Amino acid sequence: MISGTEPHVQSSVSGRTGWEQIVDLALAEDIGTGDVTTLAIIPSDTRATGAIIAKQSGVISGIGLAGFVFHRVDPSVVFTPMIQDGDSIEPGVTIATIAGAARGLLMAERVALNILQRLSGVATITRSYVDQIAGAHARIVDTRKTTPGMRGLEKAAVRHGGGFNHRFGLADGVLIKDNHLAALGPPGSDRVGRAVALARSHAPHTLRIEIEVTNFQELEEAVTAGADVIMLDNMDLPTMRRAVEFVAGRALLEASGGIVLSSVREVAATGVDLISAGALTHSAPSLDLSLEFSIGAG
Amino acid sequence: MISGTEPHVQSSVSGRTGWEQIVDLALAEDIGTGDVTTLAIIPSDTRATGAIIAKQSGVISGIGLAGFVFHRVDPSVVFTPMIQDGDSIEPGVTIATIAGAARGLLMAERVALNILQRLSGVATITRSYVDQIAGAHARIVDTRKTTPGMRGLEKAAVRHGGGFNHRFGLADGVLIKDNHLAALGPPGSDRVGRAVALARSHAPHTLRIEIEVTNFQELEEAVTAGADVIMLDNMDLPTMRRAVEFVAGRALLEASGGIVLSSVREVAATGVDLISAGALTHSAPSLDLSLEFSIGAG
Amino acid sequence: MISGTEPHVQSSVSGRTGWEQIVDLALAEDIGTGDVTTLAIIPSDTRATGAIIAKQSGVISGIGLAGFVFHRVDPSVVFTPMIQDGDSIEPGVTIATIAGAARGLLMAERVALNILQRLSGVATITRSYVDQIAGAHARIVDTRKTTPGMRGLEKAAVRHGGGFNHRFGLADGVLIKDNHLAALGPPGSDRVGRAVALARSHAPHTLRIEIEVTNFQELEEAVTAGADVIMLDNMDLPTMRRAVEFVAGRALLEASGGIVLSSVREVAATGVDLISAGALTHSAPSLDLSLEFSIGAG
Amino acid sequence: MISGTEPHVQSSVSGRTGWEQIVDLALAEDIGTGDVTTLAIIPSDTRATGAIIAKQSGVISGIGLAGFVFHRVDPSVVFTPMIQDGDSIEPGVTIATIAGAARGLLMAERVALNILQRLSGVATITRSYVDQIAGAHARIVDTRKTTPGMRGLEKAAVRHGGGFNHRFGLADGVLIKDNHLAALGPPGSDRVGRAVALARSHAPHTLRIEIEVTNFQELEEAVTAGADVIMLDNMDLPTMRRAVEFVAGRALLEASGGIVLSSVREVAATGVDLISAGALTHSAPSLDLSLEFSIGAG
Amino acid sequence: MISGTEPHVQSSVSGRTGWEQIVDLALAEDIGTGDVTTLAIIPSDTRATGAIIAKQSGVISGIGLAGFVFHRVDPSVVFTPMIQDGDSIEPGVTIATIAGAARGLLMAERVALNILQRLSGVATITRSYVDQIAGAHARIVDTRKTTPGMRGLEKAAVRHGGGFNHRFGLADGVLIKDNHLAALGPPGSDRVGRAVALARSHAPHTLRIEIEVTNFQELEEAVTAGADVIMLDNMDLPTMRRAVEFVAGRALLEASGGIVLSSVREVAATGVDLISAGALTHSAPSLDLSLEFSIGAG
Amino acid sequence: MISGTEPHVQSSVSGRTGWEQIVDLALAEDIGTGDVTTLAIIPSDTRATGAIIAKQSGVISGIGLAGFVFHRVDPSVVFTPMIQDGDSIEPGVTIATIAGAARGLLMAERVALNILQRLSGVATITRSYVDQIAGAHARIVDTRKTTPGMRGLEKAAVRHGGGFNHRFGLADGVLIKDNHLAALGPPGSDRVGRAVALARSHAPHTLRIEIEVTNFQELEEAVTAGADVIMLDNMDLPTMRRAVEFVAGRALLEASGGIVLSSVREVAATGVDLISAGALTHSAPSLDLSLEFSIGAG
Repeated sequence: MISGTEPHVQSSVSGRTGWEQIVDLALAEDIGTGDVTTLAIIPSDTRATGAIIAKQSGVISGIGLAGFVFHRVDPSVVFTPMIQDGDSIEPGVTIATIAGAARGLLMAERVALNILQRLSGVATITRSYVDQIAGAHARIVDTRKTTPGMRGLEKAAVRHGGGFNHRFGLADGVLIKDNHLAALGPPGSDRVGRAVALARSHAPHTLRIEIEVTNFQELEEAVTAGADVIMLDNMDLPTMRRAVEFVAGRALLEASGGIVLSSVREVAATGVDLISAGALTHSAPSLDLSLEFSIGAG
Repeated sequence: MISGTEPHVQSSVSGRTGWEQIVDLALAEDIGTGDVTTLAIIPSDTRATGAIIAKQSGVISGIGLAGFVFHRVDPSVVFTPMIQDGDSIEPGVTIATIAGAARGLLMAERVALNILQRLSGVATITRSYVDQIAGAHARIVDTRKTTPGMRGLEKAAVRHGGGFNHRFGLADGVLIKDNHLAALGPPGSDRVGRAVALARSHAPHTLRIEIEVTNFQELEEAVTAGADVIMLDNMDLPTMRRAVEFVAGRALLEASGGIVLSSVREVAATGVDLISAGALTHSAPSLDLSLEFSIGAG
Repeated sequence: MISGTEPHVQSSVSGRTGWEQIVDLALAEDIGTGDVTTLAIIPSDTRATGAIIAKQSGVISGIGLAGFVFHRVDPSVVFTPMIQDGDSIEPGVTIATIAGAARGLLMAERVALNILQRLSGVATITRSYVDQIAGAHARIVDTRKTTPGMRGLEKAAVRHGGGFNHRFGLADGVLIKDNHLAALGPPGSDRVGRAVALARSHAPHTLRIEIEVTNFQELEEAVTAGADVIMLDNMDLPTMRRAVEFVAGRALLEASGGIVLSSVREVAATGVDLISAGALTHSAPSLDLSLEFSIGAG
Repeated sequence: MISGTEPHVQSSVSGRTGWEQIVDLALAEDIGTGDVTTLAIIPSDTRATGAIIAKQSGVISGIGLAGFVFHRVDPSVVFTPMIQDGDSIEPGVTIATIAGAARGLLMAERVALNILQRLSGVATITRSYVDQIAGAHARIVDTRKTTPGMRGLEKAAVRHGGGFNHRFGLADGVLIKDNHLAALGPPGSDRVGRAVALARSHAPHTLRIEIEVTNFQELEEAVTAGADVIMLDNMDLPTMRRAVEFVAGRALLEASGGIVLSSVREVAATGVDLISAGALTHSAPSLDLSLEFSIGAG
Repeated sequence: MISGTEPHVQSSVSGRTGWEQIVDLALAEDIGTGDVTTLAIIPSDTRATGAIIAKQSGVISGIGLAGFVFHRVDPSVVFTPMIQDGDSIEPGVTIATIAGAARGLLMAERVALNILQRLSGVATITRSYVDQIAGAHARIVDTRKTTPGMRGLEKAAVRHGGGFNHRFGLADGVLIKDNHLAALGPPGSDRVGRAVALARSHAPHTLRIEIEVTNFQELEEAVTAGADVIMLDNMDLPTMRRAVEFVAGRALLEASGGIVLSSVREVAATGVDLISAGALTHSAPSLDLSLEFSIGAG
Repeated sequence: MISGTEPHVQSSVSGRTGWEQIVDLALAEDIGTGDVTTLAIIPSDTRATGAIIAKQSGVISGIGLAGFVFHRVDPSVVFTPMIQDGDSIEPGVTIATIAGAARGLLMAERVALNILQRLSGVATITRSYVDQIAGAHARIVDTRKTTPGMRGLEKAAVRHGGGFNHRFGLADGVLIKDNHLAALGPPGSDRVGRAVALARSHAPHTLRIEIEVTNFQELEEAVTAGADVIMLDNMDLPTMRRAVEFVAGRALLEASGGIVLSSVREVAATGVDLISAGALTHSAPSLDLSLEFSIGAG
């Protein structure tokens, strides 16, 4: 089992989980037909040790996956995590140690760091949002604005940062957006009510019905139609407050659109249940980590 | 052929190119077993049009790939790019129009935007580095600090931004780093010379030999050993200037390590041939784009 | 697009949808390294026509998929469906006609029929359940007791027969069963309430919480805990009636366990909202169909 | 090695055997992006034991494969079969015990049972045919009317039930059918003889030539042409008896078409060598089995 | 359909036929992440024509497959075969012409030629064996000593050269060898008879039973046991003649072991039915072909 | 790690290295749906030993890969190499011993030998070229004329024979050929200089620029343009000698075209740096090896 991912998750017809596939893809593009430098310079029996060291403070996600990368290249590598996913770290902290054949360590290093730095970047930015709303009722949730091929990993990183997950994708949640409504006619034609009814009658009964609204009129229609969750799209703070008061628990309310670190606290204060932010995944900078080797010491 | 990628590139044993694989992976994780909302709300014969609009200024990369995503979901979609990869755009500019069955457009939208925004983010940041050193001799080059599974696409985005590519991965370039040198003994044992000799005798004759040096002593050894390219790792500006003067064209010089947008102009002024920056790919924020639909108009 | 499956569904990282994969698997195991009989006996330029004829009454599902099988073996085959998925047919009815190279028709025949007969068997048995409860409030829903590799197709067949779908799998619905409860302690420890609370706090907010109960005590706990859906497991009719009365719309009620065609009408009469039956998919007999060829007529 | 499948069988270019592929496909469609219920309710360190119990009498097939499913989800599960493939069981008998992390057991349960119940259903119905003809000379053989993706497993189940296998698919047996004959001209044109000759001259010499005949005239032609095996298609009992007498060992005779459990004994009594029945695989009902858990006891 | 392969053959669970897979594998290893030379030198709109020219006399196999390679790299290439598989060619003959974008032609050239030259080498050597025994009763047949991944293509090449195929692999023919016999006991224990009986009772009735014998004693046992085909392993000519006389049509006889071009005529003269030669596939030299381009003329 | 291949090489997105893929492909085509003979004749508990014996002198390559084939079929086989890749062997020498279940040994035998014999054939012919030029300055290098799917293995075999590798494929070396030049205009237009300049400005700086010349005029242009390596295509010996003298170390010189074993010594004597020969890989005859079994002895 790989820390930083769900245990036992079997999401692929290839017999490999999602995280195994993205690791294999990354290794294939990096190593290609072989590491010409390492094979030329490093004898096959040279051993080495290494340590992954933080050069920045943040929250770690993907520690087990980094170990998986080393094992994928060389199953005999010994990878020892020193912290757990979700832990906060300061510069200088040792995140993991590695020991094994020098060739394998050198060939796996870049891919392991690329993945660990990216996921830790997501966990770190999520933690900063979560810390901003400490004490509030709302959940920070992610979106579908994730890195291609890394959705499951980035959603785990959001959890490691203290956030919660929205639906994984289009199959496990009903979310009616303005584009869906447009297909049912112009505003004023009770299209919100009809949309909710269509979703109720076609979608499996195991799913809640969420609908996006952009104004108070639509919000009222959504409540009347019995929507389970209502997304308040790009509303200003007074409107959000009014929405919370009006809905009064008859549906969950999700604030969405243009929410940044500096505004999230005020949004939470409106009383909404959920705050979603694409920036958690689409623009998180990599966390700065380095791998320091000692040849012969392993 | 997909703009934003190399034409005809066949990099996979699965019969799909690298960019087809990452698109398929992204669609699989987003659509899963089906878009429950769209299938419930949108009749199969509803048609729609859409436009991808810039909400920020920047440089576009991946326009053809965005079209590929829509075709992959529904081969009958008509995708019309309005600009080319590498073009600079301002907020409000239409980047492409799309017309087809509403269901397909809605199911492909998120993945198409996720990819296009990420690659355009890379092209945009690269362009800002390139503009900083306008008139200088040096090339801005990328690194191996790329998003897992997207290396080829991100390297194309760097070119669209006006940068150049370093080696693709470990197989198509010799780059001897300090970790390789450590395996050959302590400093002072002419390990630089021996490393270059080993690389010469084992690597295919089609590859240049590049070596990383961290001080002037190693630089001299590298020149003596006949290295083709020398990477100056984390050197200060005076040392870089001295290195350029000393080497005098006997090898290419690459500046590397901690180079940011505000310092790149001074680095270029030292006379180095290449400046590499991991930030082009590991931390580029997504470019803000949106897809606006009109139901029934397509 | 293949009738009998969801349009545009992209459920695989291999670039093929789920139904393409099972078709390919079936063709691979049937054709293997080549049809030695057909290649020996039938000249490559012989053409033929065929008709798929019902030998039994029932409901058809998978007509488009049957066409896909023929196209997969020979893209030039002309496959013309004469009816639509969900249509009822009587013995002697022509379901589709096929024309093309005789070799391709002969090589695709068995796999096309195997799939079409199996899915039509599922649609047919579902229709018989649905007809039994005509006029009642309840939905007939399927289970996860499906044929390995054919879940999406069989769930479509259930819809073609007039039934509804339960969750697709473990990822798109919360269903707390007795085995989950056992992990939380013995009965009487408010484990039902704790289980619902755990699910609420960990699962995405887009999912309803369903819980299985085996007695009235648990039912009361589930309602108190705010479960959205409650599965009444193997309850007798009086208990189900009492449950409907007690819950009074505060949650959906699903009857489950040992429900057969002869009992489904009485179960529906209790007023439950959903009736699930594994027999729709795990033991549906194939519908009897045949493919009749005319050589030279195509 | 997995009981219920051939040992060492390597039937796939993906590096996985056929049974590994169908298991992976089934797990992928069931588990998808993760078991939201189990991950929410069951702590990762909870352990459990389980027993697979028969609720019906029958013949077991696929016991090892069921174990493989559990191992695929969690390699640390201990799966202990209590009986062997081919064994007859009565209601209440324990077929296997399982011990391991509760999460893994819960995630693998449904797929393991789906496969084991289906294959045991095939073995059970086969055994009933075999028992019907006890003492007779004939073999009960299967057909190509198998579940897509499960042919190898279902053919093993037929053997576990005491039956024999016909050819695996189109590549390992020559079987000339009426559709093949039609391509050679009308009846009366010695097309049977020409078909057998074509097969002899084109097919590898390692294969016997089997031909389907529908009347006595064709039977005589087939014997004259030197067919190795002759399939008597939908013949009545007197004609079959006459065929056996006429052929007198010059070819093997296979009875085929509409043979059901109640008629198989009479068919065997005609003296034919082989009796094929599609019902063994295309309509076998699942054998009723259940998995009973005890949390904390493992 | 690709000439040089069986039409419609679907031998893979990946949705690609066997020949598509080996082509994709070959293109992946040759093109990798892109043709750096062509992309640097050749503008994307440059067009070219080419001709594949024979530089040696021989027999062509794989002409359609060569076309497939060009289409796989660039679907817009026009590939025009000038001859058919199985045709004999002399030096200077044009085998095919190609027109399209210069980039695509240059990137596909090497792989197309590698495959076409290798298969034509197999067809050419086979033809030389066939010509040697012109007029004789025997068939020249291939073995399982084929190039990994190319068995189906090489077996087609053998047919193009005028030879016949032995079994494809281990699944479609029973061939009992000395190693199998050894498992049944020492010579003199009627192990030949027991082996044939075991094969009869376990193998599908659609397969003939072939057995390898190394001396006359075993030959007699094999005939007595009712073997369908008997392989005479490494026997001298007088023994082979005696075997033919003794068996007198009761079984097919296959000569095998150390048969070379210079000896094949004498072997055929003994009256055996089949002569197998591994050299047809394991050591056939490539046929010399070249591809001549004209830039701008296409 | 498999001897005969690079350690740790991860060249595939499927999670299998290149050599694993070709082994799987070969096993899939040979074993297919199962070894009918072995399963019928050999009890599952029969054990055997075997030895791979040389029947010819030569150089071994692929010994570890042969072991991998046996392990892939049956992980419990014990495979003991008696020599190393690159070792010369004489007839009668034991190359490896194998012990395990008889079924697995019999099913893996043919594929293991097919691969080992082919690679050893390449190593053997390479050694003969290398021995011919003993004492000379030049390297024997391979070409891209390799067996589809086996390039990495055959390039390793060339090294085992004492040769060196040219570029792996189109991505890791710039090689400008006459076809590329033709796109830049007629001879006399300084197209050689322009081609080299284009390559310098577009290709990564990590690659050398090699160009093919066919006459002395082009050679002079190439030197002037600063080409790093110059391929002398089909030049006669005096011209090669003159080229060596003229270039005088300013570029590496590679002799290419029609070089055979009998001429290689004279070519080396001209002083060129590299001699490439397609015959090393495209027409190497298999080395004759056999596998001798003893049942019951393992």
